[in-house]
Amino acid sequence: MSNSEKTNDQIEEVAANGLLHRRAFLKTGAVVAGGAGFLSAKAAPPAVDSWTKLPGRPPEGYGNRSEFETVSRLTGYSAPAVGAGSSRAPLGNLEGIITPSALHFERHHNGIPNIDPSEHRLLIHGLVDRPLIFDLETLSQYPLVSKIRFLECSGNSRALYTSEAAPDATAQSLHGLLSCSEWTGVPLSILLDEAGVQTEGRWVLAEGADSSMMSRSIPMSKIRDDAIVAIYQNGERLRPGNGYPMRLFLPGWEGNTSVKWLRRLKVTAEPTMTRDETSKYSDLQPDGTARLFTFEMGVKSVITSPSGQQTMRGPGLYQISGIAWTGAGRISRVEVSADGGQTWGEAELTEPVLSKALTRFRIPWRWNGGATVLQSRAYDESGAVQPSRASLLSDRGGPQWGYHNHAIQSWQIAANGEVSNVYA
Amino acid sequence: MSNSEKTNDQIEEVAANGLLHRRAFLKTGAVVAGGAGFLSAKAAPPAVDSWTKLPGRPPEGYGNRSEFETVSRLTGYSAPAVGAGSSRAPLGNLEGIITPSALHFERHHNGIPNIDPSEHRLLIHGLVDRPLIFDLETLSQYPLVSKIRFLECSGNSRALYTSEAAPDATAQSLHGLLSCSEWTGVPLSILLDEAGVQTEGRWVLAEGADSSMMSRSIPMSKIRDDAIVAIYQNGERLRPGNGYPMRLFLPGWEGNTSVKWLRRLKVTAEPTMTRDETSKYSDLQPDGTARLFTFEMGVKSVITSPSGQQTMRGPGLYQISGIAWTGAGRISRVEVSADGGQTWGEAELTEPVLSKALTRFRIPWRWNGGATVLQSRAYDESGAVQPSRASLLSDRGGPQWGYHNHAIQSWQIAANGEVSNVYA
Repeated sequence: MSNSEKTNDQIEEVAANGLLHRRAFLKTGAVVAGGAGFLSAKAAPPAVDSWTKLPGRPPEGYGNRSEFETVSRLTGYSAPAVGAGSSRAPLGNLEGIITPSALHFERHHNGIPNIDPSEHRLLIHGLVDRPLIFDLETLSQYPLVSKIRFLECSGNSRALYTSEAAPDATAQSLHGLLSCSEWTGVPLSILLDEAGVQTEGRWVLAEGADSSMMSRSIPMSKIRDDAIVAIYQNGERLRPGNGYPMRLFLPGWEGNTSVKWLRRLKVTAEPTMTRDETSKYSDLQPDGTARLFTFEMGVKSVITSPSGQQTMRGPGLYQISGIAWTGAGRISRVEVSADGGQTWGEAELTEPVLSKALTRFRIPWRWNGGATVLQSRAYDESGAVQPSRASLLSDRGGPQWGYHNHAIQSWQIAANGEVSNVYA
Repeated sequence: MSNSEKTNDQIEEVAANGLLHRRAFLKTGAVVAGGAGFLSAKAAPPAVDSWTKLPGRPPEGYGNRSEFETVSRLTGYSAPAVGAGSSRAPLGNLEGIITPSALHFERHHNGIPNIDPSEHRLLIHGLVDRPLIFDLETLSQYPLVSKIRFLECSGNSRALYTSEAAPDATAQSLHGLLSCSEWTGVPLSILLDEAGVQTEGRWVLAEGADSSMMSRSIPMSKIRDDAIVAIYQNGERLRPGNGYPMRLFLPGWEGNTSVKWLRRLKVTAEPTMTRDETSKYSDLQPDGTARLFTFEMGVKSVITSPSGQQTMRGPGLYQISGIAWTGAGRISRVEVSADGGQTWGEAELTEPVLSKALTRFRIPWRWNGGATVLQSRAYDESGAVQPSRASLLSDRGGPQWGYHNHAIQSWQIAANGEVSNVYA
């Protein structure tokens, strides 16, 4: 029997409980929505709608989305001080790998400054032969590079450290401190070469112009590897919440190190031990010492469709879709389980699979209507594998950690179709 | 002498008049901006700006750009009828390959309809066994694919057909009916398989729900190859000016065939010969017959920095930057000339180099301050080469054509630094 002759029920599984070959939709005549679109012979012809009968509006210089679209970031901040502000990307409503800048996640330490780019300056000083100071116009004369790269807050997915009941939550509320853009900027190595780094200069203090003056110490090796001073995001200038007019961008590292509104880079011999790397963005270990400078983000994935607080429409064929990423380079493989981690099927990775970028994965699933748990597990080119939650907590000595949670996400599918966050 | 010991004047050229090796900036200690950023020992420390002294504003659900940013599309339409509306992407102000949706080009035949997605329907009928009708919710249950792909109006660059003086123009006004997004949608082959295309069905009429009911005939081979019904653009739902809530998307083909606000797909035996493929989107040939169904966009490139109506800041090192694309697949090579086409140097192609997507190219240039002409020439994996303007006009029998101008663009650099469009 050829593939095209198989009925939906006959398509062979690649893992238990209905996971199908990643290309089953393209190789077979699978009926996806169970004939949902079939037009009855008795149906009236489709209406000619009101908008087809009158001219539409003229184009705008800078466009907006439809008035019918309401997908939004989930924002949180402590009024009247806006210190702990954040906005989470609506992962359950996004597709592909590019996050539109209007929905890119943000994390602020004292609100979003409204910077006049003609007044803003970037100072490069410290252990250099020639201190430099740049305005945006001068910086824009330097060579640019462009990279599609993810950015993730190290505090993303923190709620999953909690030891009590798994929170009732969405992909957005749990994992939405994550986005991916095309970033264009000046390789920082070029600027530091021009300044002339002295032999003892092995770290760089990066400081922002926001009113928290958020600052981090970065090893010179990362600066030399792939650090840029970004001035464009997704083709246009940076958005204010992402560092306008210029930010440090460190691919694959915890978002906090990609200092926004960059105003100062000081070359130093040792890390500066700023507030933002000692009292924050560090983790208490079982022996009472702090784990500091945990820069690289671990290999991770999350299924975004279906995901928490969504509802299945009933038994039938689905496309499971999600995103995977790693600070170590490229994603090499993503597996999906439809039986709570007992068996796994390989998902299709959507091209392009780029280093330190989100990778979209998809796999067909024939849901039989029974309660079960969906999970995804990512692998990267360094050989790292996304850990289970139990394994992560065990390795780290308990749930007191707040950062770098990259454990496998479990979504429970109830028989009534409701999807919810569980610990499994 | 090692590269790092060379002064700027000593970096070897790869083509005449100052074109340098594509990686010269990374391999040498080239001083780009001539010390523009050097901080005088007597200079005052940089000011602490007003926005560093007060908390900023809280995050928004759906973000906006800075109030200081004014880059805009160039819009044109005939009031009060909005028939010939268009908006051109600001190519000279964009970087990378992704066009933000707010600045993506648009071409409208009777304005932008304001469609309620809950009311919109897509009908598939004609030579099929089972006519289908979809609303957005049903369509969204089908498998999705995501592709980063360019879109170009076949009337782009039309002004360069004019036989008189080269128009005083910008990259935007000449070539701005071109953009690149990540498009996500349902492979049309899946929907047609479900409808069951009859043996004689070899073309598909695609019709839009705008009030011009713009419609085109598409060969079944393209539908089977890579056509999608797109419902997401750059991660979020389509913008109204680009077909919200659903559009046909035909990678690499003239933009007009990617019918927006898609309401009807009718499978036919022959092309329908609609108004939009007979009286428009065709070219008169010297023998008096019309050239029809000129679907694929030719291999093309344009330098965006520097480009028309920009101004050079004076002699010194520059990074020439531009974009290349082809409907035939991947760009294989881009060459740049700094002497009006006599000698050519190979530009660096920025990764990722994707099929039927914009490819960003860059090459260093040491401008000596003399008047000259810059050009770029793209090659694609099919072996095609971007033609000179003279060659294109000669092949096509004169300047009466309006479509598919993919000739080499020439930018004149005057000794005073002014950049202008010329025929060279």
